[in-house]
Amino acid sequence: MLLIPGPVTTHPDVRAAMTVDLAPWDLDFHPLYAGVRDRVRAIAGGIAGVHAALPLQGCGHFVLEASLRTLLPVGGKILIPMTGAYADRMARLTREAGRVPVGLDVPHDRPVDPQLIAAALAADPTISHLGLVHNETATGVANDPAAIGAVVREAGRRMVVDSVSAFGALPINVGTQPELDAVLFTSNKCLEGMPGLGFVVARIESVLAGEGQAGSWCLDLADIYRHAERSGYGSFRFTPPAQVLNAFRVALDRFDAEGGQPARLARYMANRDVLMDGMQALGLRPVLARDVQGPTVVNIHAPDAPAWDLQVFVDALKQRDVVISNFYNTPFPSFRVGCIGCITPADMQRAVTAMGDALKDMGILQRNAA
Amino acid sequence: MLLIPGPVTTHPDVRAAMTVDLAPWDLDFHPLYAGVRDRVRAIAGGIAGVHAALPLQGCGHFVLEASLRTLLPVGGKILIPMTGAYADRMARLTREAGRVPVGLDVPHDRPVDPQLIAAALAADPTISHLGLVHNETATGVANDPAAIGAVVREAGRRMVVDSVSAFGALPINVGTQPELDAVLFTSNKCLEGMPGLGFVVARIESVLAGEGQAGSWCLDLADIYRHAERSGYGSFRFTPPAQVLNAFRVALDRFDAEGGQPARLARYMANRDVLMDGMQALGLRPVLARDVQGPTVVNIHAPDAPAWDLQVFVDALKQRDVVISNFYNTPFPSFRVGCIGCITPADMQRAVTAMGDALKDMGILQRNAA
Repeated sequence: MLLIPGPVTTHPDVRAAMTVDLAPWDLDFHPLYAGVRDRVRAIAGGIAGVHAALPLQGCGHFVLEASLRTLLPVGGKILIPMTGAYADRMARLTREAGRVPVGLDVPHDRPVDPQLIAAALAADPTISHLGLVHNETATGVANDPAAIGAVVREAGRRMVVDSVSAFGALPINVGTQPELDAVLFTSNKCLEGMPGLGFVVARIESVLAGEGQAGSWCLDLADIYRHAERSGYGSFRFTPPAQVLNAFRVALDRFDAEGGQPARLARYMANRDVLMDGMQALGLRPVLARDVQGPTVVNIHAPDAPAWDLQVFVDALKQRDVVISNFYNTPFPSFRVGCIGCITPADMQRAVTAMGDALKDMGILQRNAA
Repeated sequence: MLLIPGPVTTHPDVRAAMTVDLAPWDLDFHPLYAGVRDRVRAIAGGIAGVHAALPLQGCGHFVLEASLRTLLPVGGKILIPMTGAYADRMARLTREAGRVPVGLDVPHDRPVDPQLIAAALAADPTISHLGLVHNETATGVANDPAAIGAVVREAGRRMVVDSVSAFGALPINVGTQPELDAVLFTSNKCLEGMPGLGFVVARIESVLAGEGQAGSWCLDLADIYRHAERSGYGSFRFTPPAQVLNAFRVALDRFDAEGGQPARLARYMANRDVLMDGMQALGLRPVLARDVQGPTVVNIHAPDAPAWDLQVFVDALKQRDVVISNFYNTPFPSFRVGCIGCITPADMQRAVTAMGDALKDMGILQRNAA
């Protein structure tokens, strides 16, 4: 059981779809490609003819860099609320691509305040875009793209949302937010597919306005769009991880069968609550207050005990079939537990028991503790 | 049976390795990553400490663009013998990345003549690199990196080889060719893994000399190298297609068990010969003379018959469980058959029979023909 914020635990039916040889240029493959694109656009609330789902081989970094390169010219400025490691990532991708990230310091223990964004945009009219991490995977704080988007729209600017660890669980609707140029995510987080594939749901007119400015054929959303829409062809651009796409189709079937985004969010929140309740019962303290704690990942303060050692804890959990992250994501010692993937509250309860047992083995909790 | 020049037909054991959930940051994953890197470097003839195998999520375009961006500065010039569609690809990737491709016209029916390269390099001392497509997948012509490399070395220039459809079958040895800065390839061609992963075997000093010039975090080989070599860590940079890497390990086991590159080349050449003999027996004409025909892909002149239609032929073959490319790769009508992947000469013989039967069904060959 992978309790990391992606790649997530997947359903056996999803994994089984990986074991087939596929010819990505064959006519039989085209409906798979087109079908996944349509379904992903619909999940984002996209409108046919206005928005397009643009798949790209690779990972979250790739779809984020492709979005930044295509939407911003060289030297273009994007305001980034510095919410944690994933905002740092956006800033670095921006800077190395020759665009200009303008970092905005924000607290790490609560969602980004829209008024801070409004003030920062008002202070610098040369900033064309706002870049938001939907769910900051480092801290677990979920931001609200609708509330932030309202001030961006009001200010006449555009917006890019890194929704990698949120999309499919936290709501977002490009159809009602015309300031949203791009919402990007990957196959292997809340949509519970296998890793290897990223998506951008983008506003077509913004992508086409950026035609020629990416400075990279590989990371050019406009070229992906042109290729995908070629009449009578419409295939994946370049060799895709075809098996990952096939598995993603099965993952989308499961997503639909579960009841889509609201049902998925409800399950993840239930996982989160089992985890937070369980940790508190063990005398451990989650980093975030529950009202700002997102559904993806929960950081728990490391026990204040001499015997604490993250890798020892990770190894002890792994012996119990539970895998968590083995590095710190906060400036203070904490351990990070993912609540997403093909897991239920009952699975999470087993993981909580495993954590208690591991801490007892480490001599941190008493044998007769809860 | 996929008879396309990649993704190729894979062995069931390779595909089976795709059905496992993996945590790429877990310590158990590190040996898989490090092991594959070492094995790939060895296949390229690389020397530890001098060469490094650098994996990158994605496809051949991505590793090629990453190589060009990292090794050439903006405005840097690379001579590219225009051997066909894959040389066109290299030129476009170069140009869109802000580097300067210098195209050299060469015949498409024979390997690149080293003397043409020597003359072109002598004529323009501002050209720093030579970019060669090892096996031109459009035409099927195999080039000789050792012969070309000798004149590049003599001219004091550097060299990048796109070996996507050749590596593992056609020999190349970075250890004996110090002018080779980068040899790049993917998981799903002659090494018979699943698609989703590219590799560059690069000269470390050249990669580090290019540190800071890629203009892209995603496509920066120097960053991949720094990350991979981090002591005590050494993990994949960003979320990898972990299942594809796991399957690739199994593919490398099979490669070793078969006898490595010489054995693989021998099998592919046997496949090629069965195909060429079979086509000639059917009265069809391969595009290339046998002495220049590489092992990866064979183009066959389309029958000069009114009933010829590539898609009809492709569909008729698919009914017989054989998949070939459904688009033209030559300026004249031809069909393209891949000889690589987990297939044997006996498999190819069955494919030849299927082709004959399909042509008979189309009324192009007589029912009583060979």
